[in-house]
Amino acid sequence: MNEIVLGPNQYGKAEVRVVRVHRETEVHQIRDLNVTSFLRGDFAETFLTGDNSKVLATDTQKNTVYAFAKKYGISSPEEFLLTLGRHFLSYPEVHGGRWLAESYPWERITVEGRPHEHSFVRSTQEIRTAAVTSQDGAEYVLGGFKDLTVLKSTGSEFTGFPRDEYTTLPETTDRIMATDISARWLYQDDAAQAGSVDFDAVFAQVKQIVLEQFAAVHSLSLQQTLYAAGSAVLEAVPQIEDIRFAMPNNHHYVVDLTPFGLENPNEVFEAGVLPYGLMNASVTRAGAQPKPAAWQWIPGFV
Amino acid sequence: MNEIVLGPNQYGKAEVRVVRVHRETEVHQIRDLNVTSFLRGDFAETFLTGDNSKVLATDTQKNTVYAFAKKYGISSPEEFLLTLGRHFLSYPEVHGGRWLAESYPWERITVEGRPHEHSFVRSTQEIRTAAVTSQDGAEYVLGGFKDLTVLKSTGSEFTGFPRDEYTTLPETTDRIMATDISARWLYQDDAAQAGSVDFDAVFAQVKQIVLEQFAAVHSLSLQQTLYAAGSAVLEAVPQIEDIRFAMPNNHHYVVDLTPFGLENPNEVFEAGVLPYGLMNASVTRAGAQPKPAAWQWIPGFV
Amino acid sequence: MNEIVLGPNQYGKAEVRVVRVHRETEVHQIRDLNVTSFLRGDFAETFLTGDNSKVLATDTQKNTVYAFAKKYGISSPEEFLLTLGRHFLSYPEVHGGRWLAESYPWERITVEGRPHEHSFVRSTQEIRTAAVTSQDGAEYVLGGFKDLTVLKSTGSEFTGFPRDEYTTLPETTDRIMATDISARWLYQDDAAQAGSVDFDAVFAQVKQIVLEQFAAVHSLSLQQTLYAAGSAVLEAVPQIEDIRFAMPNNHHYVVDLTPFGLENPNEVFEAGVLPYGLMNASVTRAGAQPKPAAWQWIPGFV
Amino acid sequence: MNEIVLGPNQYGKAEVRVVRVHRETEVHQIRDLNVTSFLRGDFAETFLTGDNSKVLATDTQKNTVYAFAKKYGISSPEEFLLTLGRHFLSYPEVHGGRWLAESYPWERITVEGRPHEHSFVRSTQEIRTAAVTSQDGAEYVLGGFKDLTVLKSTGSEFTGFPRDEYTTLPETTDRIMATDISARWLYQDDAAQAGSVDFDAVFAQVKQIVLEQFAAVHSLSLQQTLYAAGSAVLEAVPQIEDIRFAMPNNHHYVVDLTPFGLENPNEVFEAGVLPYGLMNASVTRAGAQPKPAAWQWIPGFV
Repeated sequence: MNEIVLGPNQYGKAEVRVVRVHRETEVHQIRDLNVTSFLRGDFAETFLTGDNSKVLATDTQKNTVYAFAKKYGISSPEEFLLTLGRHFLSYPEVHGGRWLAESYPWERITVEGRPHEHSFVRSTQEIRTAAVTSQDGAEYVLGGFKDLTVLKSTGSEFTGFPRDEYTTLPETTDRIMATDISARWLYQDDAAQAGSVDFDAVFAQVKQIVLEQFAAVHSLSLQQTLYAAGSAVLEAVPQIEDIRFAMPNNHHYVVDLTPFGLENPNEVFEAGVLPYGLMNASVTRAGAQPKPAAWQWIPGFV
Repeated sequence: MNEIVLGPNQYGKAEVRVVRVHRETEVHQIRDLNVTSFLRGDFAETFLTGDNSKVLATDTQKNTVYAFAKKYGISSPEEFLLTLGRHFLSYPEVHGGRWLAESYPWERITVEGRPHEHSFVRSTQEIRTAAVTSQDGAEYVLGGFKDLTVLKSTGSEFTGFPRDEYTTLPETTDRIMATDISARWLYQDDAAQAGSVDFDAVFAQVKQIVLEQFAAVHSLSLQQTLYAAGSAVLEAVPQIEDIRFAMPNNHHYVVDLTPFGLENPNEVFEAGVLPYGLMNASVTRAGAQPKPAAWQWIPGFV
Repeated sequence: MNEIVLGPNQYGKAEVRVVRVHRETEVHQIRDLNVTSFLRGDFAETFLTGDNSKVLATDTQKNTVYAFAKKYGISSPEEFLLTLGRHFLSYPEVHGGRWLAESYPWERITVEGRPHEHSFVRSTQEIRTAAVTSQDGAEYVLGGFKDLTVLKSTGSEFTGFPRDEYTTLPETTDRIMATDISARWLYQDDAAQAGSVDFDAVFAQVKQIVLEQFAAVHSLSLQQTLYAAGSAVLEAVPQIEDIRFAMPNNHHYVVDLTPFGLENPNEVFEAGVLPYGLMNASVTRAGAQPKPAAWQWIPGFV
Repeated sequence: MNEIVLGPNQYGKAEVRVVRVHRETEVHQIRDLNVTSFLRGDFAETFLTGDNSKVLATDTQKNTVYAFAKKYGISSPEEFLLTLGRHFLSYPEVHGGRWLAESYPWERITVEGRPHEHSFVRSTQEIRTAAVTSQDGAEYVLGGFKDLTVLKSTGSEFTGFPRDEYTTLPETTDRIMATDISARWLYQDDAAQAGSVDFDAVFAQVKQIVLEQFAAVHSLSLQQTLYAAGSAVLEAVPQIEDIRFAMPNNHHYVVDLTPFGLENPNEVFEAGVLPYGLMNASVTRAGAQPKPAAWQWIPGFV
């Protein structure tokens, strides 16, 4: 048995809920984020001896989130995290870190046909996500979203799969296909760091492309739909070099109504809960430098 | 000590997930419900002796949901539950019951500017709810929704409340007001039973009225906003005789930034989780016959 | 259409999380509660005009919980709620209310075979619940627990139920029976108010009786098991006058392994998620005065 | 812009709920698992063209779980996953994969002082976890658990941390320390593959060591406690070469009771919800070969 040592580690404050109201005019803008900050660096002493002299308190990290929301505002989740991360990197004991955000969608309430100045309704198709990682002097920016739940009531097949002794699933040329799309995409270094990316615009563009591909592709497998969505994004958005998906297959089972003397030509379904199919995949550009530090420890993504 | 006896009871099948695709044309329609069925009646024997000869199996109740989704379609949650309940009432051992539904909102995906024929995205502002109760020969219909999350970044005060020895809350004339509105409304008997109500249209109308009142009322208390919303609904919709709300107060705390040399004129908030304020109230028509059977055992509502 | 009026209402603070450490000796005791306080009374003005002069702030209710945890300690959830409720009743505008608690179970960590003085592990079989209601001068105390998850792998049948055109369920004389038991029991007025009940002891006794009945009764239906448990409690505990249960039927489906050339004599089960059976029932003493105020608006119980 | 290509990917069936009753004698044994199976291999065609001829259906993976539960029984989660994984590896198109399980804890109900033969109560301190990964011809086995919630009411300090312009946290030499311990440990290759590990016994041993260290160490930081727990495990269990933790800091805030004229010498706490501290760390043996394939994509662990 060898000597026991400390391995990889990080620490921070998770799920700091910050709502920033931009009220320069009577038409208020809001940003509603859930921010997590992780630091990595020269922190072995607190593990080994309880010496905290280098441990920037997680409470301090939380305070910094709130102070920065005031000082710099929140223009986009990605920019907010970049500002936050660069600040923490200025401490000598901090060698890297990760900063994460979820962003919740609010829409203006319509009153007498017009959007209200300061009243909003939570209107969720997806939760937007962002992640910034600093490691070994490099900075990685991931845009993303999760839980974009979609369903198509036809236009999906699943046939031609191998049959072994444990296979009972019939082939089908018409089924419901449904999934909760989670996606993360890695921005090209130069684009993200130069500040030349309009993160909000890219987010909206990616979401729309993914929805359109889901709808328009006649699907032979959920994998095929995933790849179509990913490659359409890479074709349309040059600033993205890699996009990854986590997509469950939300099974909808055709209910057998024959005991009741009824046919069921794909009209009545039981929406299944457990188990579900699940796939992870990356669509990327050939020859791109692998950047494992950008993706490592991001929950749910290969 | 007196003899031990069976008291009030009901049983059934909860959370039957049914997706009904109406595919008469290439433009598919979908209804996505979570249905619960409770029966009440002459069921004492199974409790007392295990004699199940009058117990319509909960599995049978589930099968009936799926069969009826095929036979009758799902035009609105309320109508589906009415059909279901009247069927079960035809059994002599069934003296009453309750049928509940949640309905999940799907929107068509837009492809090249046009709504797609058979592809949908879950688009949640609220979950729609419905409840039908049969008791003592009467039939009650509740429409409703839950978790309509709203926030106004100004236009809300809270002042003039009493101060006792445990009061520390400062008065404020400008705060964030936020809540997750859950509402249930009782239809007039005649309207609901005669089939003269357009349940989908009333649902949409009530939701819009509630949103508008939340936005437009300058609020002195969350209670005032609730009452304004309820009375506006009753004024606009004669088929409704009583509307009840469950509304948490989703506190947003102004973060104290003075330690960091920063002012915070209601720009940076911590979104609180626990604890939260919570209120329940009914807005009703004077002289309306109380109908406790309609509301009893409906979770979350006084 | 009649005049619009305010109906029944209550308001308060929900889910105040209080951990009370009793550290009079080196052997610490902890109580870990989630407390909710609702007031009912003369509060119409805030709904109608926004006049808050009678509205004891929910923030004040929260402060009172914390102050009372210090002043009076927490001996049992029921006694803590009684103290809290009687305090609020002393305000003239408060005519009644409800106070609820959940209590989380902690066990001492065993170190070198001995229970540690101040280190604990959350050890959950159930969440304990308590509710105190004051209305029209009466005071009602409910003890309870929720989510006591139990399973028996044999000793359960379900046969003899009626078969209609929608019945497909086969009869079975050997099945898994599993449920999450939630129970609430109403204490006799005199016992609870005189302070003569040892609430902790009764809680432990009721739980053990319910578990034993679940295990020991050869079950012909889940209803029969429920009634056996309830009547055994009433027989053993004279201070209880009514006990009510909410019990899902957590279906476990025998997996059909015949396509794989395997028999499955009740050895391999799929634990179902949705849908589930669900029953509510009361077991009570004949001739007991009905006390609807004790039970009304308690979520999940008839 | 380079050509677009498929990157890393996997697919499978998630959360297959299997309950295995071993009923060879009247004293039944149960294993209750939630199993996930992911395959990696030669699956590009289904992404690129929708050709499924190599895609072992996720439904087949589910069936295999149930069939294997019958054929081989479930002795421990780790052994069940090893059997499952080796089976799938026998398909030429499968080059690797990951198999995961959660295992739910059941205890026998005590009836008249004796453990019942076939009646059980869910008794949760933690959820046990297991993971088996096959990649590039190697096989990795992780034991683990999650959500072991612990609290110590004294014996914890946090002092000596740096103070910058955003630091407001006071130092404390007496606080509540509380966390939900999640741990995963990597077995030495030889031990795990040779079948010489008693996985159930190691699980119980690791849990007890972690609990004892949490209780016994006077803690200067949560990091110090984590490291003490990890190194104690490695010292005691030679078959483990690396143990990793994910531990939130479940903050308990001393409530300020001075406005009410009350002192609060660490007796009354608010249990916080969000935000929370969070740390991840590995404790390992010096010179151990890094095995990223064992840990990559395991949610929640660095």
